[in-house]
Amino acid sequence: MYIDHDTIVAPATASGGALTIIRLSGADAVAIADHLFRGRRPLADCKSHTAHFGTIEVEGRVIDEVVATLFRAPQSYTGDDTVEFSCHGSAYILREVLRLAIEAGARMAEPGEFTRRAYLSGHLDLAQAEAVADLIAANSQAAHRIATHQMRGGYSSALDKLRDELLSLTALLELELDFGEEDVEFADRTQLRTTMQAISAEIERLRHSFALGNALKEGVPVAIVGAPNVGKSTLLNQLLQEDRAMVSEIAGTTRDVIEEYLTIDGVRFRILDTAGLHHTEDRLEQMGIERTHQSIRRAMIILHLWDAREAVQGSLPTPDFPIREDQTLLSICNKTDLVTDFTAPDHVIPIVARTGEGIDRLRQALRAAVRDDEEQTIVSNARHYEALTTASEALTRALSGLDSNLPTDLLSEEIRSVITAIGSITARGEILPTEILGHLFGHFCIGK
Amino acid sequence: MYIDHDTIVAPATASGGALTIIRLSGADAVAIADHLFRGRRPLADCKSHTAHFGTIEVEGRVIDEVVATLFRAPQSYTGDDTVEFSCHGSAYILREVLRLAIEAGARMAEPGEFTRRAYLSGHLDLAQAEAVADLIAANSQAAHRIATHQMRGGYSSALDKLRDELLSLTALLELELDFGEEDVEFADRTQLRTTMQAISAEIERLRHSFALGNALKEGVPVAIVGAPNVGKSTLLNQLLQEDRAMVSEIAGTTRDVIEEYLTIDGVRFRILDTAGLHHTEDRLEQMGIERTHQSIRRAMIILHLWDAREAVQGSLPTPDFPIREDQTLLSICNKTDLVTDFTAPDHVIPIVARTGEGIDRLRQALRAAVRDDEEQTIVSNARHYEALTTASEALTRALSGLDSNLPTDLLSEEIRSVITAIGSITARGEILPTEILGHLFGHFCIGK
Repeated sequence: MYIDHDTIVAPATASGGALTIIRLSGADAVAIADHLFRGRRPLADCKSHTAHFGTIEVEGRVIDEVVATLFRAPQSYTGDDTVEFSCHGSAYILREVLRLAIEAGARMAEPGEFTRRAYLSGHLDLAQAEAVADLIAANSQAAHRIATHQMRGGYSSALDKLRDELLSLTALLELELDFGEEDVEFADRTQLRTTMQAISAEIERLRHSFALGNALKEGVPVAIVGAPNVGKSTLLNQLLQEDRAMVSEIAGTTRDVIEEYLTIDGVRFRILDTAGLHHTEDRLEQMGIERTHQSIRRAMIILHLWDAREAVQGSLPTPDFPIREDQTLLSICNKTDLVTDFTAPDHVIPIVARTGEGIDRLRQALRAAVRDDEEQTIVSNARHYEALTTASEALTRALSGLDSNLPTDLLSEEIRSVITAIGSITARGEILPTEILGHLFGHFCIGK
Repeated sequence: MYIDHDTIVAPATASGGALTIIRLSGADAVAIADHLFRGRRPLADCKSHTAHFGTIEVEGRVIDEVVATLFRAPQSYTGDDTVEFSCHGSAYILREVLRLAIEAGARMAEPGEFTRRAYLSGHLDLAQAEAVADLIAANSQAAHRIATHQMRGGYSSALDKLRDELLSLTALLELELDFGEEDVEFADRTQLRTTMQAISAEIERLRHSFALGNALKEGVPVAIVGAPNVGKSTLLNQLLQEDRAMVSEIAGTTRDVIEEYLTIDGVRFRILDTAGLHHTEDRLEQMGIERTHQSIRRAMIILHLWDAREAVQGSLPTPDFPIREDQTLLSICNKTDLVTDFTAPDHVIPIVARTGEGIDRLRQALRAAVRDDEEQTIVSNARHYEALTTASEALTRALSGLDSNLPTDLLSEEIRSVITAIGSITARGEILPTEILGHLFGHFCIGK
């Protein structure tokens, strides 16, 4: 493929700070930088990874005093010659330096173009490049850990291991094809099935980790659900330590779903406070309750809240909504200060939402419900999830082909489809069409 | 004075970009940076002005992949050892790196503390340090030029020249004091007066330049004034090329003053659209008109707008408000398309605000009314203006003392006051009290 080496320029920092970093990268980056920059000597004569004080000037007029840092190809982020100007953080200076760089032959970088070049130059594989955007967006320790792991290639090597195993399988199968006439079996079918099943199990595990990975990235959805006036909004406010939701004595105060974010021990939760579940003929209330059911379906964790006074000994309230296997239900008994003879069973968390009593235990239970094993590779990218689903389907076809004595060449072809699907995640050594790259890098910020 | 060399840390860029720069500066900056940073070798073993790729880690957990740039004392902005980490621009990473640096012994920098250290270390004089904040805030070429000139010391050397001349004067006068008994005159009084008058004229020029300097920094105030319904708001919208002000056929549509900014050829104007001037008994309208008069008083340039239909040949409308000598009045005749037999005199600018006809000539006239001579030193800082006023007063006293044969020692003392006042602007080699420094640097942004 044709790789662009023309010189691109963009600010790499947000405006409004003490400094603005302006990045130039491409074949002519040093020449263009020297056109603007007056230091002790031209950057063309300087070594890689050195920083130089000087001025940016146009026709003798000083635009700014800056530090220029030089990164020579291939030892730069993009793989091309790169110069970073550390300027004073003024909108006027930024505008002028960009204008001068463009007049000298650079062009404005597209969003994500620096990282796109890092991928095209082979400095990062595609999964690593995608992780850069995730890393910048990460706002919790868990999301940050997944992005860092992916950016540093830990994720890619887990995929490579799967791919290598599959390549060994096809190598054996294709050897059989070479000896086609002789009807030999190099690949023991029983062992083949065992290996394919193990790979399938790992792919399924990765696929299933996407729900968690996506939740850790976007915030783990938690729905607070219960009858009217059991204290759902009071609980939300108590969890957030602020008066977010309107509370009153009147049942049905919360009509629409309220969303708020809360971080517990490195994990970000998206808490959904919902309208109380009850039978009603009121059209507006019915709409609110329908939205509550939507929230329940979207939630990974459901906090089922009920009033201690309703709990007759031996007959605890049970949820009157369906719960899926992949959801966690926490049963929470509120207003325990209003009853005297009530002992909560072990699986119930007793709280007084109004005062905050029991909230710590609830927070611990919420955090414990997120099983983010640090040792496990977690998928957090929808594109990767789709690729793994394609891989999984092809592998299922291959396994059933094995059972039905599918001809070796067709079997081999199915396994090749699995390899292609998994390989598309890192896309190393592959040439992706420009429109796909544009789609992948288009949502990056400018200057990255 | 005691100069702090403890190590300070702060982000030097705004949040939300692709990169975040985190600055560490102080005696232990390198040791603290090495505590967080894992590169090919410790920064302690690296040369000044070099950049190093590596990771920031805590207990084996990678927080980010970064580039660390090292500036060793005294070749850094602050004069102390400085390390800049170029991190991925994530709020989580910023938080973690700051936390780790603080745990390792750094403390959060106060606003402007890096520049304050640059001043205390003698890298910048006080006027230069103050210019750094102006430079960051500069949003027009003119404001930027003043700040750059000041930051690069051009302003300081103009003041130094004045100061040197005054020092020569006092040297001669003080020589006379040494020979006090002998009643000699080393300083020819006539020549002394000539020199002092020349210095006084230059100080007065600098003082008067403050109105322009401040206007260039904050936006040159321009009031659009005229009778109701002459098209003042239409003119504002036409100048801005947008529908900013509400316009209608109804006289008195604009009640309060509307402020908008407009840049013409590197100068920023603050345009004030006002309520129409006329006699009224309406209390609300009277208040609007009072505010119009305030705007007229604040303006450097007044656009006096009138309707071509009112202009009877030979009797042009004259402004019915007072104009000061330091204000520029532009007479503008609007709605020239509604009259047929009218020729505007040379000093009148004919326009059709509705269509934009004549607006270019008006823009040129506005720009020409700002006489910002690039060769002249311009004062733009209120503190400097006050110091120059103090200097001016002492010099006036010295001059009148010269007339009244004031004893040489008292004369010399007055001139010393002038020197002190001028010297306080750059405050080089001087030790300013902490509270004054706190006041001067407190309005800087964090990380500068």
